[in-house]
Amino acid sequence: MSWWLDACKAPSETAKNVAEARQLQLTKPTGSLSELERTAVLLASLQNNPRPNIDYPWITIFAGDHGVMEENISAYPQAVTRQMLQNFTTGGACISVIAREYNATLQVIDCGSVGDTYDYKGVERHCIMPGTANFAKSVAMTEAQCAEAMRLGAESADKAYRSGASIYVAGEMGIGNTCSASAVACFLLNEPAEQLTGVGTGIRAEQLAHKKNVIDQALGLHKDYVGNDAFRALCAVGGLEIAAMTGAYIRCAQIGLPIVVDGFISSASALVAVRLNPQVREWMLFGHQSAEYGHVRLLQELKAQPLLKLNLRLGEGSGAGAALGLIKLACSLHNNMATFAEAAVIGEKV
Amino acid sequence: MSWWLDACKAPSETAKNVAEARQLQLTKPTGSLSELERTAVLLASLQNNPRPNIDYPWITIFAGDHGVMEENISAYPQAVTRQMLQNFTTGGACISVIAREYNATLQVIDCGSVGDTYDYKGVERHCIMPGTANFAKSVAMTEAQCAEAMRLGAESADKAYRSGASIYVAGEMGIGNTCSASAVACFLLNEPAEQLTGVGTGIRAEQLAHKKNVIDQALGLHKDYVGNDAFRALCAVGGLEIAAMTGAYIRCAQIGLPIVVDGFISSASALVAVRLNPQVREWMLFGHQSAEYGHVRLLQELKAQPLLKLNLRLGEGSGAGAALGLIKLACSLHNNMATFAEAAVIGEKV
Repeated sequence: MSWWLDACKAPSETAKNVAEARQLQLTKPTGSLSELERTAVLLASLQNNPRPNIDYPWITIFAGDHGVMEENISAYPQAVTRQMLQNFTTGGACISVIAREYNATLQVIDCGSVGDTYDYKGVERHCIMPGTANFAKSVAMTEAQCAEAMRLGAESADKAYRSGASIYVAGEMGIGNTCSASAVACFLLNEPAEQLTGVGTGIRAEQLAHKKNVIDQALGLHKDYVGNDAFRALCAVGGLEIAAMTGAYIRCAQIGLPIVVDGFISSASALVAVRLNPQVREWMLFGHQSAEYGHVRLLQELKAQPLLKLNLRLGEGSGAGAALGLIKLACSLHNNMATFAEAAVIGEKV
Repeated sequence: MSWWLDACKAPSETAKNVAEARQLQLTKPTGSLSELERTAVLLASLQNNPRPNIDYPWITIFAGDHGVMEENISAYPQAVTRQMLQNFTTGGACISVIAREYNATLQVIDCGSVGDTYDYKGVERHCIMPGTANFAKSVAMTEAQCAEAMRLGAESADKAYRSGASIYVAGEMGIGNTCSASAVACFLLNEPAEQLTGVGTGIRAEQLAHKKNVIDQALGLHKDYVGNDAFRALCAVGGLEIAAMTGAYIRCAQIGLPIVVDGFISSASALVAVRLNPQVREWMLFGHQSAEYGHVRLLQELKAQPLLKLNLRLGEGSGAGAALGLIKLACSLHNNMATFAEAAVIGEKV
């Protein structure tokens, strides 16, 4: 049950050095492509390829429902989780459009949503449980259920890798899941709800205050069980999709598939992954700094500087997805710009 | 000679309203795509099309040499301007790669570089003068030369429009041109060089101090001639390519072609354009906040919030070019996401 402690693959120092040397030869002032240079060089080291590419991006959306919805902490009703599952596969959701834009494979996994059985074409249905338990009253998941959700994530990473994916984006759908992600983050950072709780899909001030109270009470309820254990934090107040993303990130790092982390909820998953297995951090690129309050704090903890800051707060992996275009451009520039020698351009004065 | 004072086209309020209404119906939390929503709605109003697109991006690089290079203010030798002209058309420059990435037409105009006649395939050669005069000693351009450079820019905008361009990017190449752009910005903002001068392609601290001195002395030399006249500031300390971009921006706004402004030098041109004809501002999107010191101040003056902040400092329109991917994505999301009704998804709780 502790596969997630296994070692991660080591990025390639050789590919990194070759890529860095190439950047110095391209026809531009030294260092002038900054974040795009760093992105290309990082990807070279992760793909063990001095000419990195993201020709085959892979995006998996993990969905799950949340028992804490009983506490009235969201602007949208729970039924929207199910409805959006269909919208992903029929192509109308934000992430569906992004996937088409960047020729990404879009996998949709239901880890446990509330409702009757269904047969939505294109949705891989697993019902670990019909939504988590209400963490205001009990643990959200048993340790077995949480491990099962993590395994779903790992299997998705394996499938992406076998399919030849060049880069992996995990996104999430689950009405109520900023509440769960905030609670997880509070445990990991040892902070009260005030520091890490935002408006999610758009609740008003009164409901936000209530959401923080719900979280603070849950932190009290579960603190003896959780202690300093990141896995137990996930069990106590996490979500099925949050655990699945954690599993996916860890397995990506173990098999050597670069990750683009999305917004607040994904970053909570990412931080759990890094706490469980610190080497996972090396495999992460960060796509977007979200408007959700608390994301900046998570990014600081992860020592992450996202490529984009567009104030998005949509979820579904949309911020990471939007960054795929820039990552692709970073690779194109790295691979296709001429060197000073090729273009017969004089370099910097010495 | 004062075509640039003619009225600009009015953006469409109707298309803006229809686009805004559509954004509210798309399957996402209200406002959750933030900058991408604003970009799509702005473009809808500028293109007078509630379903905007950038299917045909147009990029023009204006090149020119600078007499102030005599003062030793750059990290690169002047010959690089010419060499890069070839690199643009043979496809090895940063902006060449970006143009291919986004299927943009790339026009390359030499407004006046130093050297013998040449015949580089794909470069439109105009020699208004073989580089500007050294503005440390005299005005950089006569008023007739400056107006001629602006006319080159206007003709480029006209050509783009006639070719069916959906959006216009102006970029620049000219060794020494951050020095000229800083001097122009100092006149427009009534600031000393200290506030608006950076390292350009990468000079060291001593050379930077020298560059600031050269600019401050030129401000003193030309201040009686310039007064509060933005056109005269351009003549006194500007560059051929800087004047051409100013002309291009103004004509774009007059004929109704949306603009993406690039970094520090482009923003200096943009500010001259807005000072000459304030309505031009409505036609500008901003692609990237550059690492060049002083760009933030110019952006504040232009009340601009660029889409990207990647610390690029390469020029050539590269920051605006990199933003084309996001603008394209903003349009795709606006046009192709499902509405709540289409996807049978419940909206926000009331």
